[in-house]
Amino acid sequence: MAKRKQAPAETAKRTEPVKLSSKDKKTLSSLVVMADRVVEAAHKAKPPAIDIPSRSLSNVRFNKAQKIIEMGGGKNKRELFNLSQAKSYMQTMLVGSGCKRLIDEGKTTSIRGLYYLLKHTIEGTKEETFNDQAECDPVIEDVEVALDALREELHLYAQTKGAMVGPIEITDSGDEIDCSRMGSGGYAIPSIVEPERIQFRKHAAKFVLHVEKDTVWQRFNEDKFWKKHHCILTHGGGQPPRGVRRLLNRLHYELKLPVYCLLDNDPWGYYIYSVIKQGSINLAFESRRMAIPEAKYVGLRSKDYERCGLSSSVKIRLNDTDKKRAKQIASYPWFEHKKEWQKEIQQMISNDFKLEVESLISKDISYVTEVYVPQRLQDRDFLD
Amino acid sequence: MAKRKQAPAETAKRTEPVKLSSKDKKTLSSLVVMADRVVEAAHKAKPPAIDIPSRSLSNVRFNKAQKIIEMGGGKNKRELFNLSQAKSYMQTMLVGSGCKRLIDEGKTTSIRGLYYLLKHTIEGTKEETFNDQAECDPVIEDVEVALDALREELHLYAQTKGAMVGPIEITDSGDEIDCSRMGSGGYAIPSIVEPERIQFRKHAAKFVLHVEKDTVWQRFNEDKFWKKHHCILTHGGGQPPRGVRRLLNRLHYELKLPVYCLLDNDPWGYYIYSVIKQGSINLAFESRRMAIPEAKYVGLRSKDYERCGLSSSVKIRLNDTDKKRAKQIASYPWFEHKKEWQKEIQQMISNDFKLEVESLISKDISYVTEVYVPQRLQDRDFLD
Repeated sequence: MAKRKQAPAETAKRTEPVKLSSKDKKTLSSLVVMADRVVEAAHKAKPPAIDIPSRSLSNVRFNKAQKIIEMGGGKNKRELFNLSQAKSYMQTMLVGSGCKRLIDEGKTTSIRGLYYLLKHTIEGTKEETFNDQAECDPVIEDVEVALDALREELHLYAQTKGAMVGPIEITDSGDEIDCSRMGSGGYAIPSIVEPERIQFRKHAAKFVLHVEKDTVWQRFNEDKFWKKHHCILTHGGGQPPRGVRRLLNRLHYELKLPVYCLLDNDPWGYYIYSVIKQGSINLAFESRRMAIPEAKYVGLRSKDYERCGLSSSVKIRLNDTDKKRAKQIASYPWFEHKKEWQKEIQQMISNDFKLEVESLISKDISYVTEVYVPQRLQDRDFLD
Repeated sequence: MAKRKQAPAETAKRTEPVKLSSKDKKTLSSLVVMADRVVEAAHKAKPPAIDIPSRSLSNVRFNKAQKIIEMGGGKNKRELFNLSQAKSYMQTMLVGSGCKRLIDEGKTTSIRGLYYLLKHTIEGTKEETFNDQAECDPVIEDVEVALDALREELHLYAQTKGAMVGPIEITDSGDEIDCSRMGSGGYAIPSIVEPERIQFRKHAAKFVLHVEKDTVWQRFNEDKFWKKHHCILTHGGGQPPRGVRRLLNRLHYELKLPVYCLLDNDPWGYYIYSVIKQGSINLAFESRRMAIPEAKYVGLRSKDYERCGLSSSVKIRLNDTDKKRAKQIASYPWFEHKKEWQKEIQQMISNDFKLEVESLISKDISYVTEVYVPQRLQDRDFLD
């Protein structure tokens, strides 16, 4: 179908067979099924097509029993013999074949890497398989959801963001790592944290404290908060990437550790909490392996300006986007019926200002690690 | 001078004296000298003032002998009794006092943290010490340059970005870390990497390979490039932050390791190389401890499209900013007389496209680690 140069001789030498994990075998068989359907259709002289679960907002719903955001049953048919769908059908198959190649070779790559791996001019035309990355990314999500496979299972990784430190020993790709001896930098949480790659060996943690930002995390690490309070300390560099969310999920479910989130008193902080707890709307199909419905919010509260006696200098005025976002978040089905959250968000709006965790430094350099968080935890004073 | 609440009783308990390193003592004494000058001026009934070395482009020059960007001798006087300078004079002293407090307490914080630590309403007025972060940041740089102290020596850290892996054992804040056993995430390079915090214990590396992006770094780590080639593998998440630059500088000078940089064939990649090699214009006062004049460029070259037989699909058209930046970079005094670099940049402009390192995946998933970089190194085919 496409004109591609052969891999150069130097790299064609790989002969050792790649060992596939049981998860790889499962993903591979889903990919093969996807491909077989094309052949089947051809044999039956039927037009090849694939069903892609719809990722639109209308196909997302809140599962009240499980307290996670889920995808509904809506699907879109994508057909080869349909002028408006032929290209995206081809792209879907191409992404499938690229992921199969990665799994076959026992390698992983970034979504940028996959894009370049698959991008080429279609033979006999001037048409590119993908014009740009933005055209490739949604197709990757389509394949994930169609196969019910995490991106990581398709051997694709995201940018690394986030770190972990604390009394836990893990194995990462065969290396034994003691997260209590990681110096000031901590263990960089990789994008792929599935049990095939990362195993928990032993730990002495009572809970996980997840903080929003790297800079706040450094304060906690420097003050050895995790040592004093026997906890695992993580951050996600803002909105936590999948690797961090998945790791928090595994720490919670496999090690039975409660997860507390220290986030800013602003719509962005609320949203991060919402994503950690219920899953994200955009990646609703991954909630089951990502969301932590029992996570608690120990972040800054709208009442903290008064309660902690903060100076007016630390207030940051809400802008129009903040107000709009705050109202949106208040109307999420999973916040809608929570009195405490409604009160929290309403107060922020009537305060007309937001507060960052960093602002607590105006009380004392280590106020956040020595007073604020210990008190919240001791009083079990958090939002659910 | 200002109305500030006392630190709450719970946090005032710190009684253990903080051990100051010899570097801390040096920084502290510079800060005290700065403060003493105010008192001296008062005693002599002279208007207090401080000289701030000028950080404007006109005060930056290329030291041809040492091959680094340096600051010239230009200074600006900042006076208290000058209406247009009074505020920035006060801010300068305030930053100085904040840094003294951090050193006294043996703590570090982010520039965001320092901003909040110092921000308050000046007593009897409605004036804020700083209106926003953007007002505080240049004053921090002023203090750095006035005291000839690295930001890190003032106990300020930047966001963590960048990772390291390879046959080297280090001590970080007392923890012994073997960078050859760091799993897939690697050792997260912290912002403060001064010898007081990080010591090199032993290593078996022959060189350092610094790659631009985390996602490319993952490819090299997954392929265990550093094991095969006995090197230390680092990345800086794009433009490397100070911590990464300083660590590369230390690896180069203390361990006598050559540093090779794998960057994109675009003005941004050239610029990153320029900063690693000669220092940055904005932080010229830090070049002596950051720059690596012997660093080599093994990044993508304008001739690679032909040489590697890449498909036209991987070309990325230059935009106007790219062209403008390319010409600027070509006229830098440290590139101006280098024929190879002039040829390189000219060819990119006449190609009218740029190439990312990731595009090599179109040859083969591991082409970059198994063919491209090994060949460049073997042929000593790099730009200087």
